[in-house]
Amino acid sequence: MTTTAPFAFDSDTASTRVGDHTYELELTDRWNTPAGTANGGYLLAVCVRALRGEVPQPDLLSVSAHYLRPGTPGPARVETETARIGRRTGTGAATLLREGKEIIRVLATFTDLAAAEGQTIELGVAPELPAPEECVDPVTGRGKVAQTGIGERVEFRMPQLRGFWGGELGRAERWEFWMRFTDGRDADPIALAALVDAAPPVIFDHGVRASSTVELTAHIRRRPAPGWLAARVSTRHLVNGFHEEDFELWDSTGALVAQSRQLAIVP
Amino acid sequence: MTTTAPFAFDSDTASTRVGDHTYELELTDRWNTPAGTANGGYLLAVCVRALRGEVPQPDLLSVSAHYLRPGTPGPARVETETARIGRRTGTGAATLLREGKEIIRVLATFTDLAAAEGQTIELGVAPELPAPEECVDPVTGRGKVAQTGIGERVEFRMPQLRGFWGGELGRAERWEFWMRFTDGRDADPIALAALVDAAPPVIFDHGVRASSTVELTAHIRRRPAPGWLAARVSTRHLVNGFHEEDFELWDSTGALVAQSRQLAIVP
Repeated sequence: MTTTAPFAFDSDTASTRVGDHTYELELTDRWNTPAGTANGGYLLAVCVRALRGEVPQPDLLSVSAHYLRPGTPGPARVETETARIGRRTGTGAATLLREGKEIIRVLATFTDLAAAEGQTIELGVAPELPAPEECVDPVTGRGKVAQTGIGERVEFRMPQLRGFWGGELGRAERWEFWMRFTDGRDADPIALAALVDAAPPVIFDHGVRASSTVELTAHIRRRPAPGWLAARVSTRHLVNGFHEEDFELWDSTGALVAQSRQLAIVP
Repeated sequence: MTTTAPFAFDSDTASTRVGDHTYELELTDRWNTPAGTANGGYLLAVCVRALRGEVPQPDLLSVSAHYLRPGTPGPARVETETARIGRRTGTGAATLLREGKEIIRVLATFTDLAAAEGQTIELGVAPELPAPEECVDPVTGRGKVAQTGIGERVEFRMPQLRGFWGGELGRAERWEFWMRFTDGRDADPIALAALVDAAPPVIFDHGVRASSTVELTAHIRRRPAPGWLAARVSTRHLVNGFHEEDFELWDSTGALVAQSRQLAIVP
């Protein structure tokens, strides 16, 4: 399922440089969550993409975002600042504004992942999932998952439609499933940092129906191979309305490509 | 083992306001790591403490730090900026500079943890450790752990001195142990965010002997009860020289109080 460019992620995260460290764009509603506001991973990707043009290193390595206000469609501005450009890594800051008000603040560090040299020790294991073709699409399957906004941009394949995905309380601590952009765009480091926020939170399996990100950090561990990504998401602690969500993405070769954690609040 | 104030953590993280959003302090060598540079948790705490005075919410909730250059002892400056002050949370940015050069960049969000209301669901479990009195002090025990700088500021109690702590290769994915400030200062939210970076990295159990933080994010989940903290630290992926380190701190009542992850590079 491949379409010709421009893919939605590329056209919707692009901004135009209008001055030193200043960019403008139109935030679209095509990445809205069912709550009616822009997905946090989309907003993060807008910031990181503007910043990437200001550092020599090609790959996002680590990004931290603090979410200040909900993102709504319309004209927006990104203001960036480079903090340090080193030989191996480059770091900068970005702020996304709507009507003069800050929506998110981001710090991001870039590197050349292809030039990373050093020891590799793997103690983690990839999700054990049937092939995507043998899994169920929760949208066309018997699940009741909204298919507007980000629900149209990202698709999933689950081994079974249990718990939340089947319209019930599953009380799971962890979900594992496949995901990718619906229009066939393969993931790159910035896309990985958006995709870790693109699935319904696993805390929904406990009856929670809304969750807003306070902070999200994603680390990119490798450039991903093309194809489906295997996701593992878990939440262990909902404490007085705040919960963490850990997210791993593994590429089609079975290699870990991204790790993230977010702290979110149940309104 | 309690001394009278001032405790080292309080005196060494204090800075003096010298202008709008500008603070000065003397970075000490009392929190140096065996590598001879300032511990990253100490540097983070300096920034967060300056910033906390500028927001109405009393408790650190979430902090993200990108490490740009090693910290060395001497005169330093903190520059802060408030991003958004809301009813429930307040967010700001801070930069620590030495001789005009940026050492770390921080984003931090504060809240009133005592006023947090909402559902609690706990699926995680605290480390199962013998009481601290039944554990071994790796400094006075048969371990060979340096006791200068941060090694004097923080103490540990381990069930056994195995692997790295016994001078051998343990190849563990996870360590669990007790920790606290040596001078008897109890932890508060900012101290928790420093303590998650105060232990030797578990990747040392694989023969690695140095590791520099690229990014560290800590989430404070509860105000901690006084006393020892139970720590759980794990690293699953060392990829081309980069590794994550996950850290949990549980207070003396068995409640999760902090979660952190850092991305670090093996030089």
